[in-house]
Amino acid sequence: MDEIAADPSHPRYASLLMRHRLEAAAKRGMLADSAMIAHGRGEAFDYLLGERTTQSARLAAAEAMHRLWHAQRPVLSLNGNVAALAADDMLRLASRLGCPVEVNIFYRTPERMNAILSYIEERKEVLGLDVVVLGDAPNAAIPGLKGPRAACHQEGILDSDVILVPLEDGDRCKALVAMGKTVIVIDLNPLSRSAQQASITVVDELSRALATMLAWDEGEMPEAYDHQTVLKDAHKAMLDGLSDA
Amino acid sequence: MDEIAADPSHPRYASLLMRHRLEAAAKRGMLADSAMIAHGRGEAFDYLLGERTTQSARLAAAEAMHRLWHAQRPVLSLNGNVAALAADDMLRLASRLGCPVEVNIFYRTPERMNAILSYIEERKEVLGLDVVVLGDAPNAAIPGLKGPRAACHQEGILDSDVILVPLEDGDRCKALVAMGKTVIVIDLNPLSRSAQQASITVVDELSRALATMLAWDEGEMPEAYDHQTVLKDAHKAMLDGLSDA
Repeated sequence: MDEIAADPSHPRYASLLMRHRLEAAAKRGMLADSAMIAHGRGEAFDYLLGERTTQSARLAAAEAMHRLWHAQRPVLSLNGNVAALAADDMLRLASRLGCPVEVNIFYRTPERMNAILSYIEERKEVLGLDVVVLGDAPNAAIPGLKGPRAACHQEGILDSDVILVPLEDGDRCKALVAMGKTVIVIDLNPLSRSAQQASITVVDELSRALATMLAWDEGEMPEAYDHQTVLKDAHKAMLDGLSDA
Repeated sequence: MDEIAADPSHPRYASLLMRHRLEAAAKRGMLADSAMIAHGRGEAFDYLLGERTTQSARLAAAEAMHRLWHAQRPVLSLNGNVAALAADDMLRLASRLGCPVEVNIFYRTPERMNAILSYIEERKEVLGLDVVVLGDAPNAAIPGLKGPRAACHQEGILDSDVILVPLEDGDRCKALVAMGKTVIVIDLNPLSRSAQQASITVVDELSRALATMLAWDEGEMPEAYDHQTVLKDAHKAMLDGLSDA
């Protein structure tokens, strides 16, 4: 790791740590070509947000966690970037909820799937968590999507009622919503198709959003959630951030 | 190239073409790890700009070209991203101005320098242009910078009076300004240190900015240029873009 990223007191520590994780994941073959570019776009939006968790993001994270706690068949979906940036917290969340994680990537190749799956198994071992990891043998398809990007597990994504899909592509988000699922997205761009189409959108950096979710207990009741209000608040926070810059 | 990027009528053609160029350059070993992330950040700012050349960017590009035309010793500096995205237009510009280009990268390794230099020589051959390409044997140092990032050619960057350094790092931009040079930056973030510190900043996507510059004739006189006004206009254009989104 670069010397700056090794010092937690550095003002850019969190951001540099995430970059370091992506670079390590790229070396392991976990990422598509577009992964770094997508991360850079997210960095720019986070810069406008002031790299902080807004009140409306906190509300959305609480609602997301409440829905996951009370789901019949929750599932957490991971793509390459999510695995790279936050495999540990996704596994902790699955362990807490007693639900499976499913590796599901947009540009599916056997090599990338294996690289991501083996990394998650490795982290599961290190953390000593008992979590079912799906993705290696898809036996179902998401209706409305074509080819390898439709592939999923019946006992995971297909039969789920509440699904967390951070950093998700717009088409897949739309297809999951069309299946009648509660779709929870974590996305730094409140204007993206995923953010707009999801049931619940947490407009926050992935690791901050997951930390907020992990701190939310099963018995707590969130405030009333309105999707459009949360998106508008995030948009306004970015306008304020850009305006004050 | 992916099927979308091969169709010039696709609304995202220009953006996908730039990504394709970066991916090809990454395969040739021309890019640092952070290159794709930096490009993604730029994409987000360009999205706020509406992916168009604003009036103030056009004014800045005209002023930049006017200064280069009337320089005693102009030079064009290329890093990995600039070579990947716009080697051809940088060579055309150098040929038009009769000045050298110099490859100068922040994270200098012999492998990356060779990869970039051989790509530029290849493009120079294809375009049939007679341009001096510097960078392979630095014999001077930029005062105020440490280690390999200070290395440059005396007959190129060191003795230049007007220098074009697109997508430049803030520290290097500052060091060049401190040497008394007219420093021209092309940067999509009007709030970046480079954008703020440069003598002239074109807040535009690199290939659009270079196209504007190439269209500016030697005899033309630009309107009066004010650095802070141009930066404020770019900032306002982004605020308007985000506000209308």
